[in-house]
Amino acid sequence: MRFSFVLVLGLWTTFSLNAQSNDEKMLRSIYDEALTHSQCYDWLDYLSNTIGARLSGSSSAEKAVQYTQSELEQLGLDRVFLQEVMVPHWVRGEKEKAYFENNGKKVEVPICALGSSVATPKNGLKAPIIEVMGIDEMIALGAEKIKGKIVFFNRPMTPIHIRTFEAYGGCIDQRSSGAREAAKLGAVGVIVRSMNLRLDDFPHTGNTNYGDLPKEKYIPAAAISTNGANLLSDSLKSNPNLEFFFKQSCETLPDVVSYNVVGEIKGTEKPDEIMVIGGHLDSWDLGDGSHDDGAGVVQSMEILSIFKRLGYKPKHTIRVVLFMNEENGNRGGKKYAALAESNKENHIFALESVAGGFSPRGFSFEADSANFSKISNWKTLFEPYLIHIFVEGHTGVDIGPLQSKHIVKAGLQPDSQRYFDYHHAANDTFDAVNKRELELGAATMASLVYLMDQYGIN
Amino acid sequence: MRFSFVLVLGLWTTFSLNAQSNDEKMLRSIYDEALTHSQCYDWLDYLSNTIGARLSGSSSAEKAVQYTQSELEQLGLDRVFLQEVMVPHWVRGEKEKAYFENNGKKVEVPICALGSSVATPKNGLKAPIIEVMGIDEMIALGAEKIKGKIVFFNRPMTPIHIRTFEAYGGCIDQRSSGAREAAKLGAVGVIVRSMNLRLDDFPHTGNTNYGDLPKEKYIPAAAISTNGANLLSDSLKSNPNLEFFFKQSCETLPDVVSYNVVGEIKGTEKPDEIMVIGGHLDSWDLGDGSHDDGAGVVQSMEILSIFKRLGYKPKHTIRVVLFMNEENGNRGGKKYAALAESNKENHIFALESVAGGFSPRGFSFEADSANFSKISNWKTLFEPYLIHIFVEGHTGVDIGPLQSKHIVKAGLQPDSQRYFDYHHAANDTFDAVNKRELELGAATMASLVYLMDQYGIN
Repeated sequence: MRFSFVLVLGLWTTFSLNAQSNDEKMLRSIYDEALTHSQCYDWLDYLSNTIGARLSGSSSAEKAVQYTQSELEQLGLDRVFLQEVMVPHWVRGEKEKAYFENNGKKVEVPICALGSSVATPKNGLKAPIIEVMGIDEMIALGAEKIKGKIVFFNRPMTPIHIRTFEAYGGCIDQRSSGAREAAKLGAVGVIVRSMNLRLDDFPHTGNTNYGDLPKEKYIPAAAISTNGANLLSDSLKSNPNLEFFFKQSCETLPDVVSYNVVGEIKGTEKPDEIMVIGGHLDSWDLGDGSHDDGAGVVQSMEILSIFKRLGYKPKHTIRVVLFMNEENGNRGGKKYAALAESNKENHIFALESVAGGFSPRGFSFEADSANFSKISNWKTLFEPYLIHIFVEGHTGVDIGPLQSKHIVKAGLQPDSQRYFDYHHAANDTFDAVNKRELELGAATMASLVYLMDQYGIN
Repeated sequence: MRFSFVLVLGLWTTFSLNAQSNDEKMLRSIYDEALTHSQCYDWLDYLSNTIGARLSGSSSAEKAVQYTQSELEQLGLDRVFLQEVMVPHWVRGEKEKAYFENNGKKVEVPICALGSSVATPKNGLKAPIIEVMGIDEMIALGAEKIKGKIVFFNRPMTPIHIRTFEAYGGCIDQRSSGAREAAKLGAVGVIVRSMNLRLDDFPHTGNTNYGDLPKEKYIPAAAISTNGANLLSDSLKSNPNLEFFFKQSCETLPDVVSYNVVGEIKGTEKPDEIMVIGGHLDSWDLGDGSHDDGAGVVQSMEILSIFKRLGYKPKHTIRVVLFMNEENGNRGGKKYAALAESNKENHIFALESVAGGFSPRGFSFEADSANFSKISNWKTLFEPYLIHIFVEGHTGVDIGPLQSKHIVKAGLQPDSQRYFDYHHAANDTFDAVNKRELELGAATMASLVYLMDQYGIN
C-alpha cells in the first residue's frame, strides 16, 4: 500500500510539475509575444485618432464597428459576426456655458451636460444655487429650500481609498440619481462636482438617470470641473445668494441600430463551452475614449491575436465581444446575455477589461469559493509579471447580465491611481495610454484565459 | 511546565497581536495623512517649475539647496544642516545639431551631448558612421574598421523585461563606456541610441565616463532619439557609406562648491543609531528632473513631515539627506559616507527613492538573510496598500558608498513601465508626475521607516 501510494504520488507530482513548467513557459511566451509583436497599440491609435469618440448612436461608433469587425476578420478566426442592438442616441449639441456672478463679477466655469440629460431652455437657465454634500442632505433640507433652485452636489471623492474605484463608488449617486431626486423636490437644475481626484479644469460627464420620473419633470444636469466646484463653493460661502447660469442644448433622439462585434476561435475539445472576453466599443464624446474603453477593446482583440500567432488551439471556444452602449444603457451587454440564453449557449467564463489601459495589477472575480480557490493557486505563475491582486468583487458592467449556473467572471484590475484623472473627460486621449502598460494588460488577460482554458471551471 | 509554556505563548501572542494591531493603525494613519495633507506635490511643483533643472554646479542646483534647507527648517526638526561637497561643473552650451545626408537629402535628427562629454570641433564633426550593437561587436571589428569613424551604438532596450531597469542594465554600457572604448580604437565620435523603450523624438542624456583615457584622446559623445536611431539605421542599410555630422559645445569647467542638505529628528531611545532616507537634489539639465529625482527628494522630506504631523517620536535618529551630484559623479553620496565614517556615526538603515514618482509597488533590499526574512514578515501589513514587492537587489547610488557592518539598505520600487519614457530627457517634467502616486510613494517609505524604527535590525 505504501509503495503504491508513493508511486502514485510520484507520478502525480511529475505530472503536476510538468504542467506547472508548461504553464510557466506558456505565460512567458504570451508576455514575450505581447511585448514584442502586439497590434493593440496600433489598433488603439486608429480607434482614438482616426475614428475618435464613439458615443452610442454616433457615426463614429458605427465606424468603430466596421473597423474592429474588419480587423478581427484579418486574424483568421473561425467566426466573426455582428449582433444587432438598438441603442439610445443622445447628442450633446453646442458646447455648454456656465457662469455665476460674484460681487458683480461674472465668473465662467467649465461644465458639460451629463449623459441623458435634457437641455436647459434655449437661452439658458439662471437660478439661485444651493450646495449640498449629497442626496440625503438635500432631502433633509426639504422641498421648501430646494424648490426653484439649482442644486449643486459637491461631495468630493475621498482621497484615502487606495483603490480609487471605492472613492468613485462613494460619489456616483450624485451623478446618477441627483437630478431625479432634486426634481422631486422642485429643483430646476443640477450641477454635480466631477468625479475626479485631481484638481483641474476638465468637467467629467457620465450618465444620469431620471428613472420613472414623468418626462415633463426632467431637469437639466451638468458636471462642473473640480477647480470650478471649489471656486463656486468658496464663492457661495461669502455670497450664499448668488445665482448660477448654465446653458446646454443636448437632446435624446430616437434609438438607432448598432452592433456588438463578436469574433471567436472554436474550441477543439469543448466547443460548446464558451469563454467570453470583452470591453466596450462605445465611449463618451468628450475625449477619444482611449482608456474608457478603447484599451479594453484592443486588449481583448489582442488575446485572440496572441493565441493565433502562438498557434495555441484552445479547448474551449474563446469569444471576443466588443460591446456597444456600456456608457448610457448597457444595451449591448443585455442583448448579448439575452441571445446567449435564447441560443442556449453555455458560458463558463467571462473576462472584462474596463478599468483603463494602465499597468495591470491583477483581477477581481465573481466565482464560487471552489473556483476562486482554484484560481488563486495560479497566483505564483503570475508573480514574475508583478501581477498580485486576486480578489473577489465586481467585474464588469457588460458581462453583468450574463447569468449561468456555474459561470466564473473576472475583471482586469490595472493600477487605478490615474484612472479618474481621465475618466469621461476630454483628456481621455491616446497620449495618456502607455504602450507597454496596455500590452502587459493584454498579456495578463491572455494568461488568465489560457489557464482557464487549460483547467476549466469546477 | 506545559502550563507555563502555554501561558508564555499566550502572553507572547497577545503582545504580538497588539503590536500587529498598533502597526496596522499606524500604517493607516501614515497613508491617510500622506493622501490628505502632504506637502510633497507642492514642493515638487516649486523645485520643478520655479527652480527647474538642477545640474550639479548650476545656479539652480544652489537654489534647490537653499529652498529645501529652508523648507526643512520649517518642519521643526531637531537639526538641519549642509554638508559641503565639491562637484563637477559640466555645461551643455548651445543646443546640439546633427544630420546625415542620404541620397543628397539632409536629414536632421535630435541629439544631445552625453554628460561629461567633450565638445566637437567648433564647426562640428563630419565623418563616416558605423553601426554596432555593442562594445563587443565594435572590438571584434577592430581598429581598422573603426578608425576615423563615428561609432553608432544602437542596441535597443529589450522590451520583454517586466522590470524595465533590467532592460536599462542591458544597454547602459554603450552610454557609460562606449566613447572610451571607441576612442581606444581610433573613433572620432560616438552616437548612442537613447535608453528609452518608446519610439519618440526625445534624446536622453546621461553620463559617459572616459576612465583613464588621456585627455587628448577624449572624443565627443551624444545620444540620439529612438526614432532618430531607427531612421539612421534604416538609412545605413541602403547607404552604408553615409556621413554623419554633429556639433556640440559642451565643456567641463572647474569644480564648484555645493552641498548635501540634511535634516533630522533625534531618536528618543537610540539617538546614536541613524536611519537615513534620501533622494538626489541634482538632476540632468534637459527637463526639470521631476521624476529623476525631484520625486525622491520631496518624498524623503515628506516622511519627516508626516512623522511631525502625526506626533510620532522615533526611537532612532531619522535623517533625511538630499544628495548632490548623483548624476555625474556621486560626490554627494561619497562625501556623506566619508563624513559618517570620520564622525564614527552608526548607520543601521538607509532608504533611497530614485526610481521615479510612480505608483509604489515595494522595495528592493540589501540585507543579510536574517534581516531580509524579518522585513519580509511585514509584507502583510503593506497588503492593504497594494505594496507587494520585497526583493533582494540594488537599492540606490547615493547610499551605495555607505558601508557599515550591519546596515540594511532599501530602495523604493515604483511601477517602472513609464520611467524610461522620461529618464534624463526633456519630458521629465512636473506634469508627468501624478500627485497621488507621489504621495503613495512617500507613505510607503514612511511606513517602512516606522517599522524599521519600531523593530530595529538584527
